Amino acid sequence: MISRVLSAALAEHAGQRVTIAGWVHRRRHLKSVSFLVVRDRSGLAQVVSASGELPAEESVVRVTGTVTPAGQAPGGVELTGPEIEVLAEPDKAPPFDLYRPVVAASLPTILDHAPVALRHPLLRAPLEISAASVAGFRETLDGLGFTEIHTPKIVASATESGANVFGIDYFGRRAYLAQSPQFYKQTMVGVFERVYEVGPVFRAEPHDTVRHLAQYTSLDAELGFVADHRDVMAVLREVVAGMVESVRRRAGAAVEATGTVLPAVPDEIPAVHFTEAQRLTGEDEPDLSPAQERWLSEWARREHGSEFLFVTGYPMSKRPFYTHPDPARPGYSNGFDLLFRGLELVTGGQRLHRYEDYVRALDGDVEPYEGYLQAFRYGMPPHGGFALGLERWTARLTGAANIRQATAFPRDLHRLSP
Amino acid sequence: MISRVLSAALAEHAGQRVTIAGWVHRRRHLKSVSFLVVRDRSGLAQVVSASGELPAEESVVRVTGTVTPAGQAPGGVELTGPEIEVLAEPDKAPPFDLYRPVVAASLPTILDHAPVALRHPLLRAPLEISAASVAGFRETLDGLGFTEIHTPKIVASATESGANVFGIDYFGRRAYLAQSPQFYKQTMVGVFERVYEVGPVFRAEPHDTVRHLAQYTSLDAELGFVADHRDVMAVLREVVAGMVESVRRRAGAAVEATGTVLPAVPDEIPAVHFTEAQRLTGEDEPDLSPAQERWLSEWARREHGSEFLFVTGYPMSKRPFYTHPDPARPGYSNGFDLLFRGLELVTGGQRLHRYEDYVRALDGDVEPYEGYLQAFRYGMPPHGGFALGLERWTARLTGAANIRQATAFPRDLHRLSP
Repeated sequence: MISRVLSAALAEHAGQRVTIAGWVHRRRHLKSVSFLVVRDRSGLAQVVSASGELPAEESVVRVTGTVTPAGQAPGGVELTGPEIEVLAEPDKAPPFDLYRPVVAASLPTILDHAPVALRHPLLRAPLEISAASVAGFRETLDGLGFTEIHTPKIVASATESGANVFGIDYFGRRAYLAQSPQFYKQTMVGVFERVYEVGPVFRAEPHDTVRHLAQYTSLDAELGFVADHRDVMAVLREVVAGMVESVRRRAGAAVEATGTVLPAVPDEIPAVHFTEAQRLTGEDEPDLSPAQERWLSEWARREHGSEFLFVTGYPMSKRPFYTHPDPARPGYSNGFDLLFRGLELVTGGQRLHRYEDYVRALDGDVEPYEGYLQAFRYGMPPHGGFALGLERWTARLTGAANIRQATAFPRDLHRLSP
Repeated sequence: MISRVLSAALAEHAGQRVTIAGWVHRRRHLKSVSFLVVRDRSGLAQVVSASGELPAEESVVRVTGTVTPAGQAPGGVELTGPEIEVLAEPDKAPPFDLYRPVVAASLPTILDHAPVALRHPLLRAPLEISAASVAGFRETLDGLGFTEIHTPKIVASATESGANVFGIDYFGRRAYLAQSPQFYKQTMVGVFERVYEVGPVFRAEPHDTVRHLAQYTSLDAELGFVADHRDVMAVLREVVAGMVESVRRRAGAAVEATGTVLPAVPDEIPAVHFTEAQRLTGEDEPDLSPAQERWLSEWARREHGSEFLFVTGYPMSKRPFYTHPDPARPGYSNGFDLLFRGLELVTGGQRLHRYEDYVRALDGDVEPYEGYLQAFRYGMPPHGGFALGLERWTARLTGAANIRQATAFPRDLHRLSP
């Protein structure tokens, strides 16, 4: 390994001669002295040189120098008396200055140049927050006895819901990209009782919006032996709290850089029934509009001091066929959404678990669902689960205006590269 | 949540009246007494009943009874004086007896009935070992400062290698399923220096073999600022040791059930150069045959007491275009394979990092690689990485004869469901 000290650890080596390695973030020539700012995975380091000859921005360098106190430099130290070795020279200058506080380019330009744009500390920060969030998701569920699973992304039929699917040529047969691991995670409740999956899902979303992607990372969990959907909501509350805590612990620098304000997760997240939500907002459509979601979120903040709000009991007509009805109010479901800062973040609920209920829910048209229905034929406990879109979470958390800022290489109606 | 004690914890409640919940694994009627074995995610529990009326196998039940010492029962206790509540009845009997030591059915029959077959302790065990392996992979890399990434599974061109790809209709355009995250993980070295991804990869593998799948889970890592491929091999050694240790710690029961013998991972895994491997096996083809791999593995066990063997320096002609040559022997590469118990388990190596080297390696045909090549245009450090197929690892570890036994719902030339 190239022997080196990370920039964030430089201050621990004050007075010593050490080597750092990274990219030239910025070079700056003053009258009698030159500055090189070197970027590595841990942060920035300043190098002071008497020489006017310095490698260009984005050159990969190794710099050996003396760690010298310097009040103005990152971490309070800089490298002096440097020997600079260039490990790789860029073929051309970046299309925008990476050393400026923000990248001065439009989002499409940034996305077209993602391989270099993501090197900007502010543009890579959401991905660090994303990684920390997933770690918190897993950590929480591991602690609750869940087992991680990996399920097929290529499926035989487009049966799960009305959402648009991508077709694929599978050895001459028609197949589809999975729009969620829903059927498989339910099936695996029959095996492990409690399962989760972190993986890509695919939606042939024909709309070009700021909150939809054709591929996103779905954080899915499903658990058996629940009394009803409230047990699922309680687990989800733990998961969200674990994600926030993990971001605080693992991605502190990215939180600070992006000015992200981490939400408090109440011990019990407030919940309103769908009918109450309708009454509060004075609407009577069978679903909530984005405007209603925003209003309700604001209401929860005002009334309950919570940035999270559960809406429960959505009408059965608006939920997928595997949704469990509310035994006390059959037109309404044991399904819920979790709103966060004005937006639906998670969808979940209790599922049907009796084979005969599936046959009824499918109007007897069971043949396309044969593999899935095996799980219920052979005995399944009451169960439920939820799905959380990672990019949507990260965007909402960091305040990104567009979900494309919360993923490295977005896929949408128009974008297929890089 | 349905209030319950897990079967594995029953012994801690000796003398108490408790509730368990799970599936009826087996019911057995003797002359004056009946036995019910209940299976939950933690194991099995025995229930003794005076009643001859017991729910059928795979019924989901809740049983309240008194925890009573019983030498013959799992955990040394059984539930007596039970009240049994049926939460869900199966619609029909399983196609094979799940309570027998092994499932008496052919592999295709087992795979056709995966939702119920995987409930068998021996068939679900590889998936537990798999989950523990992935946890060890991440844990090791997290400890080494790696960042987790999620990259596109839909790509614009089939450019990476000669392997067969699946075509997909992407909003009326031709696209492909990614056969590896290779290009993206290299690109992200430019952002985070050290990255990993756990995700599905897709190969339109036209052969029906015991060791290929059309979708598998690839454990990918890539790191910058390496001196050469040996730094990558050193990280891989840590990763494999971390995976073995995690399986030991997290999946002890599954290891025991399957009779899995966990390998010792030497502090330094022995390595032979490709030319030496050829000399040892007396062959001179430009690649290693499966028979040679088996021979070399056996040789490493005999000569070095190691179940792992690195083969380094494969000929450049047999490695992908992004492979870094050995500066001392240009016809040979800084690429390596890791053999484990007779089979290639991991492929890795140092990659090219200079833009001009890519232009040369691609014979100037850079246009289809434009997005990827951005990373190198703007300065990339010497780097390398590796990819490990999760199912192949699990199959090799557990001694499964067929890779389909190491995944829940395999996808292959013929199989697209369940």
